[in-house]
Amino acid sequence: MGLPLNTSVPNKLPGGRNSTAEKLLVAASELMIERSSIEVSLSDIAQKSGVNAALVKYHFGNKDGLLLALLARDAETEVSNLEYLLAQPITPTAKLRLHIAGIIRAYHRFPYMNRLIHYLLHESTAEAADEVSKFFVAPLLDFHRRLLNEGIRAGEFRNIDPVLFYTSLIGACDHLFFGRHAMSRAIGVGPVTDEVCRDYIEHMEALICGGMLKESEWRMANSE
Amino acid sequence: MGLPLNTSVPNKLPGGRNSTAEKLLVAASELMIERSSIEVSLSDIAQKSGVNAALVKYHFGNKDGLLLALLARDAETEVSNLEYLLAQPITPTAKLRLHIAGIIRAYHRFPYMNRLIHYLLHESTAEAADEVSKFFVAPLLDFHRRLLNEGIRAGEFRNIDPVLFYTSLIGACDHLFFGRHAMSRAIGVGPVTDEVCRDYIEHMEALICGGMLKESEWRMANSE
Repeated sequence: MGLPLNTSVPNKLPGGRNSTAEKLLVAASELMIERSSIEVSLSDIAQKSGVNAALVKYHFGNKDGLLLALLARDAETEVSNLEYLLAQPITPTAKLRLHIAGIIRAYHRFPYMNRLIHYLLHESTAEAADEVSKFFVAPLLDFHRRLLNEGIRAGEFRNIDPVLFYTSLIGACDHLFFGRHAMSRAIGVGPVTDEVCRDYIEHMEALICGGMLKESEWRMANSE
Repeated sequence: MGLPLNTSVPNKLPGGRNSTAEKLLVAASELMIERSSIEVSLSDIAQKSGVNAALVKYHFGNKDGLLLALLARDAETEVSNLEYLLAQPITPTAKLRLHIAGIIRAYHRFPYMNRLIHYLLHESTAEAADEVSKFFVAPLLDFHRRLLNEGIRAGEFRNIDPVLFYTSLIGACDHLFFGRHAMSRAIGVGPVTDEVCRDYIEHMEALICGGMLKESEWRMANSE
């Protein structure tokens, strides 16, 4: 689930790669990473990219259009990585572990992604939210559906509902980046460092795979 | 984790119960439930409560002050319920299950709570975010710390970090209500009904307690 910064094409643009639009997206993502914020103005983006501000409007309509194209670009890479993962000759459990680590690392490397998703789903227009659902939520849910099927068929996973699974996994991964920000200021929990990320990957792999009860307790609870 | 609507006192008010402030909070929460939204105006709240709009300013400063007081009122009830749960003569595992169900049911009964938390943590002032961290996040984290300690000492839980646990449990519960909204519109996933809530409680209890691997797989993975 790595997210190379400039390998894919904004999906609003017909006819493939457009270098001006791409430059704007690269500048926007770099600014967001530098500032740890999605609050970047169109003129900052224009200045950093060396592109005339009027061209932002031409290519993306408005700022939300640019943010949507940026998330679409990253989602495209993500989705192709999911397909790649699913095709690997490894067990469903191994795929699940790689997927958990992949989500957390992608959020960590591209901290603006989480904020963009929240902003576009909840604070922008209904059309923007629908777009995000279609190019981000739907393919991820579809991947979970297929991975769970594979694991259940292989006898590795319990029978688990994909929508409930999606909700719990994505919610838990997302919250490290969305909730931690607020925790850190007031109650002395530090920021999300590389080490916190590694710890959370380990925590989530263990929790999702085996839960938190000791094995003997879990057997007892299941035989009740 | 039930949240009776008018039993506690807005924590900004010295000298205990103030009936005008309380009326405003009751009106605000009822409007938010009716409209499934936290977008309610001060004049709507004043009208519904029969209180002069100028008194809102007097009691809460501004709208964010009122929203903060509303969340504080509900958090107070929550926190006392956590203390009550911790004192029960049942196993840590049973407490954990009740807690998971309690969080999901509280969010379901008071749909505005989730939106309020997100709004006050991320879209209001730094002071509002700090307040929410102090009266909501900190006591919940402290409860998790004590419950995990109890479960580990009793030999029921693996050794688990409370901050990572808090993040994954609250993130997963929160996402049913925060993420589902966006999913439902574009990709045919329905709204959060009573039945979805019951299913999610069952899903989360099983996932948090025992994970998703079949028992034999989990034993194998752990003996690797």
